[in-house]
Amino acid sequence: MKTTQQSKKLKKFVKRPSELRQDLVSLDWIAIATGRAKRPHAFAARQTFVHDDTETCPFDNLEKSGNEKPTLVYGKGKKNWSLLAVPNKYPAFTDGHSSCPISVPVGPHNVMEGVGFHEVFILKDHFRNLAELPTVRVRELLHAYRERYLSLKDKSCVNFISIFHNHGREAGASLTHPHSQLIALPIIPPDVRRSLEGSERYYLGEKKCVHCVMLAYELKTKSRVVFENSCAVVVAPYASHAAFELRVFPKSHQPHFETMSAKEEQCAAEALKVALWKLFKGLGNPSYNYFLHTAPTKSHQYDHYHWHIEVVPKTQVWAGFEIGTGIEISTIAPENAAKFLRSIGDR
Amino acid sequence: MKTTQQSKKLKKFVKRPSELRQDLVSLDWIAIATGRAKRPHAFAARQTFVHDDTETCPFDNLEKSGNEKPTLVYGKGKKNWSLLAVPNKYPAFTDGHSSCPISVPVGPHNVMEGVGFHEVFILKDHFRNLAELPTVRVRELLHAYRERYLSLKDKSCVNFISIFHNHGREAGASLTHPHSQLIALPIIPPDVRRSLEGSERYYLGEKKCVHCVMLAYELKTKSRVVFENSCAVVVAPYASHAAFELRVFPKSHQPHFETMSAKEEQCAAEALKVALWKLFKGLGNPSYNYFLHTAPTKSHQYDHYHWHIEVVPKTQVWAGFEIGTGIEISTIAPENAAKFLRSIGDR
Repeated sequence: MKTTQQSKKLKKFVKRPSELRQDLVSLDWIAIATGRAKRPHAFAARQTFVHDDTETCPFDNLEKSGNEKPTLVYGKGKKNWSLLAVPNKYPAFTDGHSSCPISVPVGPHNVMEGVGFHEVFILKDHFRNLAELPTVRVRELLHAYRERYLSLKDKSCVNFISIFHNHGREAGASLTHPHSQLIALPIIPPDVRRSLEGSERYYLGEKKCVHCVMLAYELKTKSRVVFENSCAVVVAPYASHAAFELRVFPKSHQPHFETMSAKEEQCAAEALKVALWKLFKGLGNPSYNYFLHTAPTKSHQYDHYHWHIEVVPKTQVWAGFEIGTGIEISTIAPENAAKFLRSIGDR
Repeated sequence: MKTTQQSKKLKKFVKRPSELRQDLVSLDWIAIATGRAKRPHAFAARQTFVHDDTETCPFDNLEKSGNEKPTLVYGKGKKNWSLLAVPNKYPAFTDGHSSCPISVPVGPHNVMEGVGFHEVFILKDHFRNLAELPTVRVRELLHAYRERYLSLKDKSCVNFISIFHNHGREAGASLTHPHSQLIALPIIPPDVRRSLEGSERYYLGEKKCVHCVMLAYELKTKSRVVFENSCAVVVAPYASHAAFELRVFPKSHQPHFETMSAKEEQCAAEALKVALWKLFKGLGNPSYNYFLHTAPTKSHQYDHYHWHIEVVPKTQVWAGFEIGTGIEISTIAPENAAKFLRSIGDR
């Protein structure tokens, strides 16, 4: 174990600002966000930060924990809120209102300041996992995502907004209190760029949305469909990246999630809630991440895209093979994962 | 927690063969290797399989554990071996000697049989981490990698060979006994393909090896160099993907690791040993993965490439942002990580 002295020695080397550095080979951008190392558990992976009581949870004691003013409040009044959005106290990207970052050469490399926004969505209930909450709460959360998305998408430096939710320590959640996060970025992230490029390539070749083609195939064959309602569907993807991975899609073609109708919001909330519930019940409350893939904020050139939410339970650890090759080994065929999850009740 | 009944219900859905499925959007191949779910800890991420004694460790009791015959034995005789290579008992890829797999359409998708080889390198000493072993043992391991690599590289279906080492549960090691793995694949994996494409793009533009250019910059500026000897160097990469990530490079330009000289093998072994030792000592025995990136087996069109070993300590967990965007957030600047690691003795 690391000694306190070594811990201090380490902290000395930590600088504040965040920056984006470009990988010279892949041209992918990575982030150096040293401000986040101020979070108490940084560099001490073995320590546990479980707040089993509401006394010590920072999200139950916002007035004491030095957070900035909420950017969004749902519910009745200061004490009776049901959902809040607040700026992240340990942001990976900051100063989104400032001038836009430019890529600067450093020797053979490129670097850019980590300009953006980083917010946290806090649900009122400390104890109940999102899977256990009624659909109305999940819908409120999706609505909050859209509201904050719409407020930030036209800021001049924002090119992509990532929205995600981490549940459980194995999924990287540093607090047990249910919360989601939003990061608004000056760049289009590598995995999103690849997803967009793939969608565009298919569209140019086939004149069809690749996700619409996949969904039509899934809805016809049914074997990987876990749940559907009138306007959304939950599937275990044919090329699953992890065991029990699920994706929530709107049935109709839509590049931008923020443009969905009230009815589609209800459909998506129900589908997400059922997906999370089935994983919770079927796998025994696994740690999981979910994240939104939607078109970038600034252009209509992404009309070929189809937004969706990817839910990835942490059923396995990424090891040397996965991080060295990018081939993720899923240990259950998605049609079998779907069959199992269909056998679990919807609620 | 999952009940035994649910566990049984799950197992029923697991099929044996492994297959490669192509992601229709990214064109990346993923693996469905249901045979691996027979490993005792599959789908039960919370169980611990630490074999603190040699009595229960399968690698200390190979004759009882039903492994196939070793493919390589170093040391003196059956009992006094110092290093073994054996076929993996729970292989992700099998039947490498059979006919080569072809990509077959399934609806709009493509699928291929998971044909290949999967071997394990077992070090004799159950208790000592690779970081604690003398350089001569690390060199023996690198030599074994090369020997098995050379035996498999000309098999007709093998296009890429991945060699990696997982240490600690957070890094996906299912056994504590020190071991490395080799997987010979019929495809060039997505991350390797991207690394090769990036290297080629740079070469076509600049007429130089991108890794040679980066190394020259590092050796001039020194700030990210952690260790060097006459023919190898350990650097914290400028665009680090994780806090305290290190890479071991041969100083001279070499696309294929298997062609290194005896002297270069000694240099690389010493560099890898020092890198692992500094992480072990400086961060308090963290879990880590390392993996080899080298040119594919079958062609000389990769002369622009430069092999290297990437060492990634598990100082943080990949959460929703990382898996949703591909942007990894490193919480310490690599020059500061390097400064810290330089302050730790070499041995």
